[in-house]
Amino acid sequence: MGMTMTQKILAAHAGLEEVMAGQLIEADLDLVLGNDVTSPVAINELKKMNTNGVFDKDKIALVPDHFTPNKDIKSAELAKCVREFAYANDITNYFEVGEVGIEHALLPEKGLVVAGDTIIGADSHTCTYGALGAFSTGVGSTDMAAGMATGKAWFKVPSAIKFEIINQLPKWVSGKDVILHIIGMIGVDGALYKSMEFAGDGIKNLTMDDRFTICNMAIEAGAKNGIFPVDEQTIEYMKDHSTKEYKIFEADEDAEYEAVYTIDLSRLRPTVAFPHLPDNTRTIDEAGDIKIDQVVIGSCTNGRISDMRVAAKILEGRKVAKGVRVIVIPATQLIYLQCIEEGLTQIFIKAGAVVSTPTCGPCLGGHMGVLAKGERAVATTNRNFIGRMGDTESEVYLASPAVAAASAVTGKLSGPEEIGL
Amino acid sequence: MGMTMTQKILAAHAGLEEVMAGQLIEADLDLVLGNDVTSPVAINELKKMNTNGVFDKDKIALVPDHFTPNKDIKSAELAKCVREFAYANDITNYFEVGEVGIEHALLPEKGLVVAGDTIIGADSHTCTYGALGAFSTGVGSTDMAAGMATGKAWFKVPSAIKFEIINQLPKWVSGKDVILHIIGMIGVDGALYKSMEFAGDGIKNLTMDDRFTICNMAIEAGAKNGIFPVDEQTIEYMKDHSTKEYKIFEADEDAEYEAVYTIDLSRLRPTVAFPHLPDNTRTIDEAGDIKIDQVVIGSCTNGRISDMRVAAKILEGRKVAKGVRVIVIPATQLIYLQCIEEGLTQIFIKAGAVVSTPTCGPCLGGHMGVLAKGERAVATTNRNFIGRMGDTESEVYLASPAVAAASAVTGKLSGPEEIGL
Repeated sequence: MGMTMTQKILAAHAGLEEVMAGQLIEADLDLVLGNDVTSPVAINELKKMNTNGVFDKDKIALVPDHFTPNKDIKSAELAKCVREFAYANDITNYFEVGEVGIEHALLPEKGLVVAGDTIIGADSHTCTYGALGAFSTGVGSTDMAAGMATGKAWFKVPSAIKFEIINQLPKWVSGKDVILHIIGMIGVDGALYKSMEFAGDGIKNLTMDDRFTICNMAIEAGAKNGIFPVDEQTIEYMKDHSTKEYKIFEADEDAEYEAVYTIDLSRLRPTVAFPHLPDNTRTIDEAGDIKIDQVVIGSCTNGRISDMRVAAKILEGRKVAKGVRVIVIPATQLIYLQCIEEGLTQIFIKAGAVVSTPTCGPCLGGHMGVLAKGERAVATTNRNFIGRMGDTESEVYLASPAVAAASAVTGKLSGPEEIGL
Repeated sequence: MGMTMTQKILAAHAGLEEVMAGQLIEADLDLVLGNDVTSPVAINELKKMNTNGVFDKDKIALVPDHFTPNKDIKSAELAKCVREFAYANDITNYFEVGEVGIEHALLPEKGLVVAGDTIIGADSHTCTYGALGAFSTGVGSTDMAAGMATGKAWFKVPSAIKFEIINQLPKWVSGKDVILHIIGMIGVDGALYKSMEFAGDGIKNLTMDDRFTICNMAIEAGAKNGIFPVDEQTIEYMKDHSTKEYKIFEADEDAEYEAVYTIDLSRLRPTVAFPHLPDNTRTIDEAGDIKIDQVVIGSCTNGRISDMRVAAKILEGRKVAKGVRVIVIPATQLIYLQCIEEGLTQIFIKAGAVVSTPTCGPCLGGHMGVLAKGERAVATTNRNFIGRMGDTESEVYLASPAVAAASAVTGKLSGPEEIGL
């Protein structure tokens, strides 16, 4: 029986010729990731283990991105805990305020994750790096602790669902719409503990940023991971960002999939997940009249430079609708700077948006745009659970940067077509 | 008996020929100001008064700057309260996220305060506008409510202390050092319920931004207000920013002052207020070896474009010291944009600082850089009371942008001279 791409990576990291779905294996880890919320818990666990520190100071990434710059004393103490641990253990990839960005945008940018890697992160959206052809998954803080101590983790080898991508995306439709469409189709538990393996001719028409966005939200379908095959674009990206050695794994011809879906990119429309689940999707044509209070453009899902470019293209020469707060958050310091150098930030400010320093902030109701009772946001983030961005009676509509920016202009949930684009 | 400048403004607003220190008067108000922390209290008080709304929708400024973009649900509810009140009463000068800046930088910039005005604001640093030759003072939320309802406020006419300014400031010494020096000299209650009236030949050598900074911190000496005479620079500033009619008041030759101090600008050194009071000052030469964790450059005291320019001059081509977080906060959207257009933001980011959207944030331990236990910050803010920026065991050192930026580079409390400038 052949193996999926994910299974092949796991087998290689477990030192096994072959693995099968459902098998329990112990795999070597290439990177262990934590942020300011999850790392302190892991650090405390690690202390209880009585180990002599960490397995490899170069293979741990500590990224305090959730509540930084510190939003209160409690978050300041969390960041301090991570900082002290990082210095005490001489962690190479600790990122301080001023270096830090949103973890899942930062790690690929810094070249810390490449094809063939096995990565765990104490953050559910760690699945993002599957875009590079890596096996990458979110874990709890205890697993992070064990990973930091031993460099290994136990996995149940996942089965897989295959998404055969064909054709190319229409104007203003992006990776975000692809993944929202898929989650809408299979449901928030549609890929429970499975790999979402993307394949097909249409992949070449998806940018790396599209792929990051798609893999980022694999967890929102319950998936263990999402993964793309490595192509020229992937190799180009890694050459630009990393000096790490990468390894290309390919699914066997006879790999087994629990289901195979064909995704015809050319038929997708801008897609929005209505409250309160990512699978509650509608195309923008079915959106109806949803007045909004806030727009958030950013997060590990859509805070990359291409997202900023799309938003700026729509906001250029236009004004944010009266009464709407628009918060733009470039995901890393590099993207923040690039936005300025490309004139995007200037467009945002002139349109009446604010541009925040990199942070996860509002995505998880942390800071930088928390919602009051009854308020509605269109956000390029990844979750719209009850109370996710603030009050339990607030609402989050998940969308692409194009839809978010168009909605900022009209003051209601809108696609770019609605403003003549 | 002659009147001070402040007394003359108050007399004119009370419809009286003459007022004396200690006299109770009711004065007409040209502007009533509130922010997202104080306005909700005032709005609730106003509702209890059973009035038909506000005295003049054009003479109220509502500036939600403290915890915006909303840092949590509670602050989101505060901002919502202000927003709903502003819309319900058609308040002309309500500023939404995307328009808003730090109130005391925003109001002069928008031309809402001019010479001869009488202004109350439910924020202690409302005294800032004295730089323009206005009478301007901080009040409680109840007074703000009464002011919004009636357009009037009761004052006890203050006596005055005169500061005779001579000569000019040395390199890297600024308005912040002037006011820290004065507070260090007279103490935090040195001007209790008095006017701090600035006079003398040296005033022409102080920029408008220097004067804003100086008046801003008058309250830190306990003063009712701080005030500068109107000169060509003031008129130029008002022409550039305002279409409002202004009126110039001058102190009488025989005005009475409780004390007169001469401030020789040429003898001042970069000055720092050590924890935990603004009068606990030392010159940078007496600072000793104070290692720091954080630098904040911003606030209503020092978040203006000239402050940003000074900080950028020092940070250009340099790097933030390892382990130090540097948070730069331009005070308004216009300043934020100007920083980009002048290349200052790019300098900050390349140096390893972060640049926040305008907010009071860390100054009052609100968000965007709250301190953990035992941490130390050098900040261009205005108060260093115990726990002001976070944990009660954290410390704040108040300084100029020049000292803050130099400290960012060395990682300890330092003046620009220490890095060869």
